[in-house]
Amino acid sequence: MNVSTLKTNLKTKSFYHKLAPFFLLLALVVSPVVQASTEEGGTHDFATTFLWIAVILVAAKLSSLVERLGQPSVLGELVIGVILGNLVLLGLHIFEPIKTDLTIAFLAELGVVILLFQIGLESNIQKMRQVGLRAFLVAIIGVVVPFILGTYVVGPLLLPGLSFNAYLFLGATLTATSVGITARVFRDLNKLQTSEAQIVLGAAVLDDVLGLIILAVVSAIVTIGAVSFGMIAWITAKAILFLVGAIVLGQIFAPYLGKIFAKIHTGVGMKLTLAISFGLTLAYLAQKIGLAPIVGAFAAGLVLDPVHFRYFKDPKVVSDVKEIIKDAPQEIQQKVNEAVEPHAHRHIEDLIEPIGFFLVPIFFVVTGINVKLETLFNLPILLVALGITVAAFIGKIVSGLVAGKVNKSIVGFGMIPRGEVGLIFAMIGKSLGVVSDEIFSAIVIMVILTTLLTPPILTFLLKRQDKKIETKRHI
Amino acid sequence: MNVSTLKTNLKTKSFYHKLAPFFLLLALVVSPVVQASTEEGGTHDFATTFLWIAVILVAAKLSSLVERLGQPSVLGELVIGVILGNLVLLGLHIFEPIKTDLTIAFLAELGVVILLFQIGLESNIQKMRQVGLRAFLVAIIGVVVPFILGTYVVGPLLLPGLSFNAYLFLGATLTATSVGITARVFRDLNKLQTSEAQIVLGAAVLDDVLGLIILAVVSAIVTIGAVSFGMIAWITAKAILFLVGAIVLGQIFAPYLGKIFAKIHTGVGMKLTLAISFGLTLAYLAQKIGLAPIVGAFAAGLVLDPVHFRYFKDPKVVSDVKEIIKDAPQEIQQKVNEAVEPHAHRHIEDLIEPIGFFLVPIFFVVTGINVKLETLFNLPILLVALGITVAAFIGKIVSGLVAGKVNKSIVGFGMIPRGEVGLIFAMIGKSLGVVSDEIFSAIVIMVILTTLLTPPILTFLLKRQDKKIETKRHI
Repeated sequence: MNVSTLKTNLKTKSFYHKLAPFFLLLALVVSPVVQASTEEGGTHDFATTFLWIAVILVAAKLSSLVERLGQPSVLGELVIGVILGNLVLLGLHIFEPIKTDLTIAFLAELGVVILLFQIGLESNIQKMRQVGLRAFLVAIIGVVVPFILGTYVVGPLLLPGLSFNAYLFLGATLTATSVGITARVFRDLNKLQTSEAQIVLGAAVLDDVLGLIILAVVSAIVTIGAVSFGMIAWITAKAILFLVGAIVLGQIFAPYLGKIFAKIHTGVGMKLTLAISFGLTLAYLAQKIGLAPIVGAFAAGLVLDPVHFRYFKDPKVVSDVKEIIKDAPQEIQQKVNEAVEPHAHRHIEDLIEPIGFFLVPIFFVVTGINVKLETLFNLPILLVALGITVAAFIGKIVSGLVAGKVNKSIVGFGMIPRGEVGLIFAMIGKSLGVVSDEIFSAIVIMVILTTLLTPPILTFLLKRQDKKIETKRHI
Repeated sequence: MNVSTLKTNLKTKSFYHKLAPFFLLLALVVSPVVQASTEEGGTHDFATTFLWIAVILVAAKLSSLVERLGQPSVLGELVIGVILGNLVLLGLHIFEPIKTDLTIAFLAELGVVILLFQIGLESNIQKMRQVGLRAFLVAIIGVVVPFILGTYVVGPLLLPGLSFNAYLFLGATLTATSVGITARVFRDLNKLQTSEAQIVLGAAVLDDVLGLIILAVVSAIVTIGAVSFGMIAWITAKAILFLVGAIVLGQIFAPYLGKIFAKIHTGVGMKLTLAISFGLTLAYLAQKIGLAPIVGAFAAGLVLDPVHFRYFKDPKVVSDVKEIIKDAPQEIQQKVNEAVEPHAHRHIEDLIEPIGFFLVPIFFVVTGINVKLETLFNLPILLVALGITVAAFIGKIVSGLVAGKVNKSIVGFGMIPRGEVGLIFAMIGKSLGVVSDEIFSAIVIMVILTTLLTPPILTFLLKRQDKKIETKRHI
């Protein structure tokens, strides 16, 4: 019932011409009211957001056609996002409101938090421990090498004449891997349980911590010209305390909490609610101490082993089947029971999956939508950006070399995507006056390129590895 | 990494006293930056919202203890919301930010849209048709009686000396039932398939349409002193066109769409995505023509019959079991197959359920949070409010009398809750200058009382009916 709709109606339906004055009056009266009620938390804007969610979800699902080309569906989501977000270059403005819709931005962030929570749930904490040392090495190398490349090589070479502080910040933006993209590729291709995937996940969490320390140090150097050991120690201690604390305390208390809550109420709703609330709380705490929320969500998922929730069952299927086969031979009864038993537990992963279907694509499509293709049209900036991107690639590929007895290039390329952490660093540098608009644009392009190039490369590497293994078998 | 945290740390940890200047400097530098990045769509606010979601979800689940008292869990969610929202009266301000968090408000709205979509899915369109005429009668009476009571009885009696226009608006705010509360009660008590529930659902959708027409008429009378038949006809036509169009076109095209999409991609993710997108789109369209979004979501759910999605299966359980029992006697094989077959389809209801677990409680807890108990402390307003509330009750209880051969009081009381539609009407009246602050407060109290009193009354009536049926059986 807004003004423009009414006007359109007035134009097209001559039948109602006589009523024009009434319509216009009503529209003029109602419009500001609806506006006002919107500001007071009404439903006007929300309904538009509903439409955007529907558009994003359908676009994401249609883009999953890329799976037919052997590509992970995350690539399709990113690409369809880039298309939707850049139709404006062809004069089509209809999707522009998505870019400024804060609720969509929130749902995207919630989506990536849910994704990392899911991936934490699917990750095995024992396996993570096994690859812990290698993940740590990969993280260290993957932070140090890009930082040095950015600060001492690419910066002075491509952007001569700037202050050392500017180079320092450039180096810092190259440190932290954005694990969402890689995790989705591993997941789409069903490779999350491989050692390579576990190393990348572990290293990505750790390099977020390392990146945080570097940011603190670099910020201190820029603002007060010095840095104290105590400060670095405190920031490091907070981050380590959070990660170790979450995992250790979680492992100790989760089983007890599960028992207590099971006594109160034993439904699948309770199970899901507790799990999600735990994930969101840790995402919040991670943010509070300066880590990315996804790190907290991942830690939460890692802690929540399905076994802690064994008290919450959904035994309907099983009891149905058991009742029916009770006259069957013992042997068959046992076989059927074994087949059906896993379905007695609606695993927390299964419960969260639909929420993932709903929210996760929003993150990737919105990531694509926010890619500004026009930044690629400025040649000097583009060249600088390509230089930075090469440094971003090399720095992480090198880190794969210390991953031990696994496919080193899969680990290395898996570490390449940079994302929001790098952008936040760049934004802080910009506000401190050491990162210029040009460097900022170049960093944005680097983020875009590492984001868009990694899925196809990683897919290629993973499939090549499969083929090798198969060939070996045949020989 | 915000200022207050750092300050606290400085106070408690004497170890770091020497570092105070550095900390403060860093905090002062980082704080505005984080603030800035927040405004540019950063993650700072989002993480806080994550925490609020966790708080709301855990509170909602703890409140489900009321189920032990035989009450529907929706009552627990409302009450815990009222408690959280009014702790401020005891000087506790920590939950205040929830009230102004727009993202939480959006998630609440999305929650009630998902709920009505679920309820539409669970409603049987054939059954709705059977009760259609009775629902229509209930809707008409349930709109006319409260409107007359408000405009000609309660208004002049309790608020003498006001303009007739003020009474008109007061009457209008009493017309539309807010179906969310009642639907949840029916659902919590597993009564959604009863004729009473179907009549209430149908009537609530229809009285939203009737309410819209009344709003248009009343607004026109207030602003231009007259109303044209054409205008009423157009608004009515739009609303009817939407409802009938959605249901008829949906029934015709949904099967074909299902087939086409099944050819592209046959996953449960696709099924869920299409269904939700359809629901959200209809919610948007409903809002666009002036109806409540929940009406669109309900229509979408009604249209989407599971049969349209039979091409999307999740046959793993079934094939597992079939493989195992293939040597068993024929008779047992058949029995087991029959038991397991329903689980081959992951029904759209099952897929949406976890999303409902996640979002629906947010709506009800937030509804409770926004109840301002201090409005009850003003005696004159409270008395007016009680008068209006009595009119609100009587008007809808009377409507139950025309519901035919069902439990008339269940239908009548089921229609009682008023909600956002009434509040929007009141807000429009306020902005037109005919609804005073006092009447507005009284209307808010009426909404609160109809919302909080209906669940226990309806539960009592539904349980009494069960007992009667049981007693009859035993005789």
